[in-house]
Amino acid sequence: MNAIAIPEKGRHRAVIEGVTPQVDTGRHPIKRIVGESVVVEADIFADGRDLLSAVVKHRPQKTAEWSETPMELLPNDRWRGRFVVTEPGRYGYTIEAWVDHFKSWRQDLQKKLEVQKDVSLEIVSGAKFIEAAAGRATAPDAERLRDWAAELRTGNCATGSSMVERALNETMAGLMERYSDRRFATTWENELSVMVEPERAQFSAWYEMFPRSFATEPGKHGTFKDCEAQLPRSAGMGFDVLYLPPIHPIGKSFRKGKNNHPVCEPDEPGSPWGIGAAEGGHKSIHPELGTLEDFRRFVQRVGDHGLELALDIAFQCSPDHPYVKEHPEWFSHRPDGSIQYAENPPKKYQDIFPFDFECEDWWSLWQELKSIFEFWIEQGVGIFRVDNPHTKTFAFWEWCVDELKRRDPGLIFLSEAFTRPKVMYHLAKMGFTQSYNYFPWRNGKDELTDYFTELAGGPLADFFYPNLWPNTPDILPRYLQDGGRAAFIVRLVLAATLGASYGIYGPAFELCENTPRDPDGEEYLNSEKYEIRRWDLRSPQSLEKLIGQVNRIRRENPALQCNRRLKFHPVDNEQLLAYTKSTEDGTDTILTVVNLDPHHRHYGWLELPLEEFQLESRRTYQMHDLLTDARYLWRGPRNYVELDPGKMPAHIFRLRRHVRTERDFDYFM
Amino acid sequence: MNAIAIPEKGRHRAVIEGVTPQVDTGRHPIKRIVGESVVVEADIFADGRDLLSAVVKHRPQKTAEWSETPMELLPNDRWRGRFVVTEPGRYGYTIEAWVDHFKSWRQDLQKKLEVQKDVSLEIVSGAKFIEAAAGRATAPDAERLRDWAAELRTGNCATGSSMVERALNETMAGLMERYSDRRFATTWENELSVMVEPERAQFSAWYEMFPRSFATEPGKHGTFKDCEAQLPRSAGMGFDVLYLPPIHPIGKSFRKGKNNHPVCEPDEPGSPWGIGAAEGGHKSIHPELGTLEDFRRFVQRVGDHGLELALDIAFQCSPDHPYVKEHPEWFSHRPDGSIQYAENPPKKYQDIFPFDFECEDWWSLWQELKSIFEFWIEQGVGIFRVDNPHTKTFAFWEWCVDELKRRDPGLIFLSEAFTRPKVMYHLAKMGFTQSYNYFPWRNGKDELTDYFTELAGGPLADFFYPNLWPNTPDILPRYLQDGGRAAFIVRLVLAATLGASYGIYGPAFELCENTPRDPDGEEYLNSEKYEIRRWDLRSPQSLEKLIGQVNRIRRENPALQCNRRLKFHPVDNEQLLAYTKSTEDGTDTILTVVNLDPHHRHYGWLELPLEEFQLESRRTYQMHDLLTDARYLWRGPRNYVELDPGKMPAHIFRLRRHVRTERDFDYFM
Repeated sequence: MNAIAIPEKGRHRAVIEGVTPQVDTGRHPIKRIVGESVVVEADIFADGRDLLSAVVKHRPQKTAEWSETPMELLPNDRWRGRFVVTEPGRYGYTIEAWVDHFKSWRQDLQKKLEVQKDVSLEIVSGAKFIEAAAGRATAPDAERLRDWAAELRTGNCATGSSMVERALNETMAGLMERYSDRRFATTWENELSVMVEPERAQFSAWYEMFPRSFATEPGKHGTFKDCEAQLPRSAGMGFDVLYLPPIHPIGKSFRKGKNNHPVCEPDEPGSPWGIGAAEGGHKSIHPELGTLEDFRRFVQRVGDHGLELALDIAFQCSPDHPYVKEHPEWFSHRPDGSIQYAENPPKKYQDIFPFDFECEDWWSLWQELKSIFEFWIEQGVGIFRVDNPHTKTFAFWEWCVDELKRRDPGLIFLSEAFTRPKVMYHLAKMGFTQSYNYFPWRNGKDELTDYFTELAGGPLADFFYPNLWPNTPDILPRYLQDGGRAAFIVRLVLAATLGASYGIYGPAFELCENTPRDPDGEEYLNSEKYEIRRWDLRSPQSLEKLIGQVNRIRRENPALQCNRRLKFHPVDNEQLLAYTKSTEDGTDTILTVVNLDPHHRHYGWLELPLEEFQLESRRTYQMHDLLTDARYLWRGPRNYVELDPGKMPAHIFRLRRHVRTERDFDYFM
Repeated sequence: MNAIAIPEKGRHRAVIEGVTPQVDTGRHPIKRIVGESVVVEADIFADGRDLLSAVVKHRPQKTAEWSETPMELLPNDRWRGRFVVTEPGRYGYTIEAWVDHFKSWRQDLQKKLEVQKDVSLEIVSGAKFIEAAAGRATAPDAERLRDWAAELRTGNCATGSSMVERALNETMAGLMERYSDRRFATTWENELSVMVEPERAQFSAWYEMFPRSFATEPGKHGTFKDCEAQLPRSAGMGFDVLYLPPIHPIGKSFRKGKNNHPVCEPDEPGSPWGIGAAEGGHKSIHPELGTLEDFRRFVQRVGDHGLELALDIAFQCSPDHPYVKEHPEWFSHRPDGSIQYAENPPKKYQDIFPFDFECEDWWSLWQELKSIFEFWIEQGVGIFRVDNPHTKTFAFWEWCVDELKRRDPGLIFLSEAFTRPKVMYHLAKMGFTQSYNYFPWRNGKDELTDYFTELAGGPLADFFYPNLWPNTPDILPRYLQDGGRAAFIVRLVLAATLGASYGIYGPAFELCENTPRDPDGEEYLNSEKYEIRRWDLRSPQSLEKLIGQVNRIRRENPALQCNRRLKFHPVDNEQLLAYTKSTEDGTDTILTVVNLDPHHRHYGWLELPLEEFQLESRRTYQMHDLLTDARYLWRGPRNYVELDPGKMPAHIFRLRRHVRTERDFDYFM
């Protein structure tokens, strides 16, 4: 028989299993926002009936020092502990658990006291645990423990109390906890990590605009300076992120004309996503927008208005991009030597050259792409909206975002990956802070309920922060095309209350622009992507005021600033959708009710789980509509709601628990 | 800035996630039975729109050679592959996936053909993939690939077919699959493992008996020879495992008397679990049962009857066990120097010394305990029922079972851990083949449905094989105490049809013995654990014949030989429980209907999902009751059932799809 290797951990009896939260067994970090707590749970048990102790260990990655917080036992061998993350960046955490002989001895002693008079031998047998702890303790504690052990061993009680009281002394038990015997402790197999994000990573309201359309004179190309004049308006509507499409020189070869026409007139501006021309590429500024100096000044102005600028990063090149000549090795080539343009057979996009992430020189490509982010970070940009990240290798993103966030953990990356769910979610695991999602195509009651239940609860909520856009320059959903102004209000309210982060592409949104290029499609007619537009910002149709009001409601109600604790409630009408969001402590509860039918008045009975909201079934409570300032007295779980899209298709109620009664009247007592 | 390390797998684009089956991310093996297939699934995807290829790799652990089977794409980026395990022992498996440029090229070419006339450049661009594959191929294939590439590159078609036909040639595509470019393939992060078990690991019928009670003369202690005479009976009832409580010398100190009395009369035999006396310990045989020679002979006789012997292994010692003197270091000591007996305060078990698995000499203890198994394996024993494994360290079991199964992968270990669920399940992960479970306390319709849905479906089914016991020497459930003979039949049918493995403690079971020692307890009055009994095996009350019939039904119906594919069906009567089990191919379907009320007749309407059983809604099918041989013609999804416990409280129906109609009549056409 062969010699048998001695198992390393033969006396490590505690088992740790089923640790939450973790993403793919710790391969990727979970996400939390600065100030939030991480609640860690696990199944922890050992053989036999000994008691266990367990702690959550946690640390900011940069230092090696662990902090610990004790875990408590829940039913069914489940344990829970928590720690708070206070700084952006990557924290580590894990669990340690061990059989706690002192705790077991103490509990057994208490049980024996119920049936046994003489427990002197049992008391003495505890002394050995205390003496061992004294050996692990530092000076004054060591002394106290040694004295205590001696007392128990000799039966000589120094104080006036009985031996049993001494043995069960709470203070000494607390001291024992500190110096517990952890020689055979079990540690969870890998160090898990939390990516701690800035507050805006979860709670943000984005406004997208094309600078080209904001010149003061008709027919001219707008500049950064022109955009400065627009800042009071965006800020006044309550947005906090101002997002611009690419600001780089636009290629001339195969430039698209108005309405994506394959041929372009000489004076047409082309699509900002056709990046790169003689004037430069991803680190240059389109001359018609201004200079780099202008841009830096604009970034500052944006900040002065309480907004933050988000830049679009689209890793692709027009045929005129300097990279094409300088680095042909970064592109794929056709047998005739030409560079392979983008295609999705049978469609061809000859104005766009994608990078070849499998090229031999991939490593120099990666570094160059990262340097693009670094360039704009140096100009003061901290938020990036990344175009089609799902067409670049995942490994690149994981590496790039990690490298950038090591230096500045407050950076925010919004992933524009309107693709299959698993790919979309994987990008969030790779480090993207926020993500576009299927919201534009979720309009019915069931599909909204299912989708947002999936996003807000369950494992996704640990790493995927959705950003909800009712429209984008690429997407004018059918619902908006058909539903008129009421439809825009419905989608605004849904986006702003279902998602802690949301955004609109304006002024197309607030002006309720809804003519499609093709009635079967979702492209805008006369899209700003291909031409300069003039917007009638003073139109009486504009939702500007309402948007401002909705954003104010979001700022004033912390319940709307987080994606968790979203709950849908039954209404007996298929067109009425109702849901609440609440803060963890329950002090702020917002009930949103939306009439999803933009054409007809609907009414129904809504049912609320009173206990969950700490409401008594026989007491009146108040629903305060923050949109109209109307107040409704409700009672019991079922109440009537009615919404007329001609007036206002939604309620955003704040629950006010206390309604005055005669008992509150000054002279009642 | 620091130099940045080049990421190792920068061009490995495929992602593998959510691999099933696996237990705790591969820390423990899944279990399968010889001949079963392992269906492996994963989410597999890459950036962009390139096509992927993926394979399941698998191997018996002993050899290093991998075999591969291709995976196929299901909806939502899920992939599936499978392999069959043919030998007991540990297999390894993992997944490899890669971006398949040739496959992508081929698909794009097909799409382009829909809109494009000239695809010559596209055809040429495929040649580079084929040339590269030729470089990886062996002699004749390499030649064929090189020729093919040349054809495509030159446009010189050797055969009569067109260039497009040549480029899309199926045979050549198959060849390309064999030599696909896997330089940048992604492999799942760890090698998962399957513990392949013998057939009996899942499908077995156990009969437990105390040899002490089978002497031919009253008052005498039964021997192995006496037990031989019983073998035709056990075999005749259709059992395949004969399980004996411990067969070792029984300690005298603190020996328990009849009905667990703390004082024992001189002639009382004591409990077989009080192991060890002057005559020896765990490797010795209780002299009153016979010699080691007798035992070996008995093992043979058991085999001759088509049964296999299972021994009880209880790692604990009576105070008289030789280990106590020879290895005091394996036990825990009290402050007065005495050895610590077992206790569960306030209860004390002074007749039992547990081993101290945390002792300094734990490693010699482990080896000795393992040698006990080895000793009995040498005597021909291949099945062990392990007493209270949850009071010994998990690490010991993992090591011990693994060591033993490396030499004999056909061994079976039944875990007797009536403890908290997570501990029970963890022992299965540590290597125990089968496990006792909560069946004795699951009697109502809801609790049976919930519990067995949990065990048969979901992740548990991958590693936990339940063994269902309606009674044991320690457990006479309330249900049997109250329900008379019908209750025994109900529990027999449930155990034998819900579980692919089940067992009874006889003859107490078949004789419907149901008097408890204490009406609030579950102990048998005059339990065989503490005394020798005489059984009236010819009692007309005996269920012997019915048990034989049930076991025959199990043997004849493969649907009952596996725990998977168990499905409960609605019956509009709370006392009627109905469920089916089916083989994977659907050729055998057994519907069991049980009246859970042993006192009253019940009837109701049962609802079956016809499509799942490939039944047409307008055609009659037959339900053949294998217990009574009655046949019922059913039609449609809802049918009437009625069960009178006075006659027979259960149906075990075999579904017979084809019922003759006029079309089957010889002269119809």
